[in-house]
Amino acid sequence: MKHQTMELKKDELVLLDQRKLPGKVEYYTAEDFREVAEAISKMVVRGAPAIGAVGAAGIYLAALEYRKMSAQEAFQQVNKAAEILKEARPTAVNLSWAVDRMMRVLQKNKNKNREALLRVLENEARNIAQEDVETNRQIGLYGHTVISDNSSVLTHCNTGALATVDFGTALGVIRESFRRNKNIHVYATETRPRLQGARLTAFELVEENIPATLIVESAVAPKLRAGEIDVVIVGADRIAANGDTANKIGTYMISELAQLHSVPFYVAAPRSTVDYSLNSGQEIEIERRSREEVVNIGGSRIAPEDITVDNPAFDITPAENITGIITEHGIISPPFKSGLDEIKDD
Amino acid sequence: MKHQTMELKKDELVLLDQRKLPGKVEYYTAEDFREVAEAISKMVVRGAPAIGAVGAAGIYLAALEYRKMSAQEAFQQVNKAAEILKEARPTAVNLSWAVDRMMRVLQKNKNKNREALLRVLENEARNIAQEDVETNRQIGLYGHTVISDNSSVLTHCNTGALATVDFGTALGVIRESFRRNKNIHVYATETRPRLQGARLTAFELVEENIPATLIVESAVAPKLRAGEIDVVIVGADRIAANGDTANKIGTYMISELAQLHSVPFYVAAPRSTVDYSLNSGQEIEIERRSREEVVNIGGSRIAPEDITVDNPAFDITPAENITGIITEHGIISPPFKSGLDEIKDD
Repeated sequence: MKHQTMELKKDELVLLDQRKLPGKVEYYTAEDFREVAEAISKMVVRGAPAIGAVGAAGIYLAALEYRKMSAQEAFQQVNKAAEILKEARPTAVNLSWAVDRMMRVLQKNKNKNREALLRVLENEARNIAQEDVETNRQIGLYGHTVISDNSSVLTHCNTGALATVDFGTALGVIRESFRRNKNIHVYATETRPRLQGARLTAFELVEENIPATLIVESAVAPKLRAGEIDVVIVGADRIAANGDTANKIGTYMISELAQLHSVPFYVAAPRSTVDYSLNSGQEIEIERRSREEVVNIGGSRIAPEDITVDNPAFDITPAENITGIITEHGIISPPFKSGLDEIKDD
Repeated sequence: MKHQTMELKKDELVLLDQRKLPGKVEYYTAEDFREVAEAISKMVVRGAPAIGAVGAAGIYLAALEYRKMSAQEAFQQVNKAAEILKEARPTAVNLSWAVDRMMRVLQKNKNKNREALLRVLENEARNIAQEDVETNRQIGLYGHTVISDNSSVLTHCNTGALATVDFGTALGVIRESFRRNKNIHVYATETRPRLQGARLTAFELVEENIPATLIVESAVAPKLRAGEIDVVIVGADRIAANGDTANKIGTYMISELAQLHSVPFYVAAPRSTVDYSLNSGQEIEIERRSREEVVNIGGSRIAPEDITVDNPAFDITPAENITGIITEHGIISPPFKSGLDEIKDD
């Protein structure tokens, strides 16, 4: 991508402000972990892998801020920062995964002198970001095999370079297929309410000249029925140990319709998206966001003031609707429980 | 409704400008049939029954405009006007139905003197509008029986007083149930791309204090899965002789999901929505509207300039997904072919 999702500078984190895309390319500078948490909750940056890497950078900024305190005090403060960062968005597990990883490194190196400890944390934050890019490339290398030449792919929400540190998960698979000169056509859903498909996925597809058509969510079903979609690939915000997948609201609907019309449905996500502590999707907390996201679009009010709104940000796609989970360790087929166990890192 | 969808004055037609709702209550005055056709195609007024009644008024305005011509010339001109009006929107059959009915009346009374003929046409246009209100009341009287006390109803798009001359079809059934003091909760989809659910249905529900929640289309599937919706009622733009139903894009998706979760799915529409000349939904022309409807919301651009957009305005729900068709002649159960034949008017 021409535009970088995130860049960790010496004492601040610079983020591409995704709320302004595609109209404006603007950057948001977070000078401390509180501004990092706010950037996550207000969706300056979004996408499970991206907010993981950003959360890790937030821990580094917190450690930097508390460098003058006693070791014990500093540790307590950074611990508090970790809680605030993790709570910025509840559904994507990558955020807690990355923050917890930073906290383990902090714990392990707590006897180092302050400057050395800060360097270790900074390196770890940079590693998490760098690994994400490598992970995505690997997901693309495994995943492109599910996209045939001369075929059309449906994707939902944004899982591209903008949802990650670079390259993308589901959109990374599509990108890899295109770069291998496969003749593909992408259908991108606009993804209400926050329009990540229209604003971000369309932006990435246009930028890379990948042939694509934007549609509203409602147009997915007739396209599947008409046989105009050969494969569906989406990302994930949290995958339970049995393969049940939390992803952007609308994913469950697409999975049911894909199954009905015998169209393969793949999830592309790094291993860090798997939450092995959860037996099934029923245990995943679904974030409910404000009514404003639904009733205001670009400053224009589209509904009466007094109408009640329910705005769940995610839904759960049951494992039985998923054809395969594309990870950096290969494509996992059902039953997912054993396949996911095999790639568990410990 | 406090606000009237349409009012035929002596030599002009006044329409509530539905593009401005819910933000502004403004009226659009059509002074001739061309402005009537434009009001239909630009969706100042929409909803199959409403555009039927409006099209009929357009024929009256055309006859008024050509009153000074010779009988033959005037007839030819009104005939041309009829074609222009019918082409303003292709999918809803009520428009051609009403325009053709006006033309039959014109044909039958062509030997009357000019003023008498104009009075006959004016009366016929007023009758069509008045009959629509009575038809909707009747649909409500039959239809409310499918909504139990203490239940929740999902509806899609706007099928209320604003989609008709008054009262509404699917939303009329809901209105009737509420007026009978049933304890109901309505889920209204926002209905992308033109947001008739958020703008118009929510407006009508709030105005009448009917308990309701606005959701994006993507949130329908998890609500059905969670058992939070007891019955679905939608309108129709054209019903083929076998019961296949063209309605707002998204209806087909909802019908599949309702069936999957064993939730009854009803279509509410007047007999004039049935197109007996079509054997199945495959013969129904699906209007494709401009990309602007998807990429611009309230003047705000939500997608990159260069992205291709497909914007089908309707889709086809196959008869086998429909539990019953609620008409002014009663609720028709499958097989619809024979049931629809029984209510045919000839």
